[in-house]
Amino acid sequence: MAQSTDSPRRVAVLGSGSWGTTFAKILADGGSSVAMWARRPELAREISQSNRNSDYLPGINLPRNIWASARLPEVLEGAEQVYLSVPSQSLRENLRIVREIIPEDALVVSLMKGVEKGTGARMSEVIRQELGLGGERVAVASGPNLALEIAKEQPTAAVVSSESIDTATAVAMTATNPYFRSFVNTDVIGTEFGGVLKNLIAVAIGIVDGVGYGENTKASIITRGLAEMTDFAVAYGARPETLSGLAGLGDLIATCESSLSRNNTAGRLLGQGYSYSEVIKQMNQTAEGLSSVAPVLELALAKGVQMPIVSQVAEVLAGTLNPRDIAPHLTTDELPQGE
Amino acid sequence: MAQSTDSPRRVAVLGSGSWGTTFAKILADGGSSVAMWARRPELAREISQSNRNSDYLPGINLPRNIWASARLPEVLEGAEQVYLSVPSQSLRENLRIVREIIPEDALVVSLMKGVEKGTGARMSEVIRQELGLGGERVAVASGPNLALEIAKEQPTAAVVSSESIDTATAVAMTATNPYFRSFVNTDVIGTEFGGVLKNLIAVAIGIVDGVGYGENTKASIITRGLAEMTDFAVAYGARPETLSGLAGLGDLIATCESSLSRNNTAGRLLGQGYSYSEVIKQMNQTAEGLSSVAPVLELALAKGVQMPIVSQVAEVLAGTLNPRDIAPHLTTDELPQGE
Repeated sequence: MAQSTDSPRRVAVLGSGSWGTTFAKILADGGSSVAMWARRPELAREISQSNRNSDYLPGINLPRNIWASARLPEVLEGAEQVYLSVPSQSLRENLRIVREIIPEDALVVSLMKGVEKGTGARMSEVIRQELGLGGERVAVASGPNLALEIAKEQPTAAVVSSESIDTATAVAMTATNPYFRSFVNTDVIGTEFGGVLKNLIAVAIGIVDGVGYGENTKASIITRGLAEMTDFAVAYGARPETLSGLAGLGDLIATCESSLSRNNTAGRLLGQGYSYSEVIKQMNQTAEGLSSVAPVLELALAKGVQMPIVSQVAEVLAGTLNPRDIAPHLTTDELPQGE
Repeated sequence: MAQSTDSPRRVAVLGSGSWGTTFAKILADGGSSVAMWARRPELAREISQSNRNSDYLPGINLPRNIWASARLPEVLEGAEQVYLSVPSQSLRENLRIVREIIPEDALVVSLMKGVEKGTGARMSEVIRQELGLGGERVAVASGPNLALEIAKEQPTAAVVSSESIDTATAVAMTATNPYFRSFVNTDVIGTEFGGVLKNLIAVAIGIVDGVGYGENTKASIITRGLAEMTDFAVAYGARPETLSGLAGLGDLIATCESSLSRNNTAGRLLGQGYSYSEVIKQMNQTAEGLSSVAPVLELALAKGVQMPIVSQVAEVLAGTLNPRDIAPHLTTDELPQGE
């Protein structure tokens, strides 16, 4: 059934943090009618009545074609596409609630970057398991995603990935507007791992920032870091060009250069000489990059992938490496070819 | 004749600007005895007697195993390796003077990033033509090269490239010390074009900086910019992995993130609304990136390579595109695959 060009597409966004709300705005500014799910009724009211989410996106006016509710069934009703932006460790339990009420045939799109603790599963894997969906029903969106900049309508490009190019294209066209452009690929593994691994390199960049090194050192680490991200992802089935694109390199650069990033902040504190436990205490919240170090190194070991920069971050966390000694010229043996 | 391990290797650096002087320090800190050529005798005196180059590297103490002279023959005498760091447009005439006095068997290393106007020749091509050398006698060094940061001994990685892996290795071992690490490859074309093309993307980044966009937009442009740099270089015979390495991506990031870069500064002024001619007047010197735009687009056209970001920079220079409209989501047609 072709949709009439007069009635806008209905989509739902589950999660009302800064990224979920920003993505709702992207979709609304692309012409869709957007229903948001907020866990707290007072936040749903603020979004619907004042067109604001003042806790998470201060100063941003939301478009009028967004409304929110704390009641999942009315949010999901009639949604052709369902975007998920909940904390990655709570995804599975949220999906169990959604399972019975999600519209048949709706496409499900992950906006999350992380792997599930314990299982090591990527977000799209958790979605497929819990909702019992084939790959052609699931997509992931990634790229350089600093929420507040996009909410301010600064031009940004992103990636939508699905095993089905038709699904990726349908989602990308919905998630495109004058300031936000979505490209498509079919490499879900590379797209998701890019978003996970960049956090680890961002911690390394934060460390050298904290030590006081400049752009040269950071550029060297980003470059060598991308190489080890690529080695890791390819070992798990990704295509290398995905990591060189917006979901790998693009996201890596944005995260490394943003002083607002939690991973960067955690790294800076480490570089200034604070211990791991002091950093956790000071930050009062988790930096995804810190908690991913150990699981990623385990996965790397399982495939025989060398990750010298991530390994050095682990040593800094363990207190066995002086942050001043984290450096690109230490990350390989004798004069390797190819770079 | 094997060199005794007791007497240090003699090398020469021609050119005493900030990069030539920094590289002399890199070589001296790697254990070589370094002779520098300075065109002006008073600068040669300052380097030799005060261990300083206060105009170009203020605040930096040079090691004692560097001396300088304005007389080329004594600088070149006994040099096993000759490093060239003169303005790219004066390289050919300088080589004509050097030709008769350069030691037989010396390796010649380009530290320069540029193409010769008129001929479009890369620096290593000019060297081989004017000195009549085979590829195995010539190398190029490139990478993220912010001179002042390296002179402050901030850890940096670089690339030495030569058609002969033995030559590249000999140079890289000479250009390695505790804070500077040289990797090797045999892709001279990719290594040299990386250093040329990154200046054009740095201008684009400067423009969006000037407009007031943030890290997301810049990350998107760097990522898409690397893709068009790679397309261009590969069309001319480079290997794509060279552009993803330190001589491409590494140099690109360092240049784009450094507010000291002339190309970045020129772009920022354009982004703030100044015209091309006003920028030239204000800067009082050339930004390599600006003068390379037209020749690079011509070379791209000759091989049928699309360079949407560089083309947009050309339009901003011509005054036919509003800097606000330079954006990653405008740089391609419908939702392409592969990113």
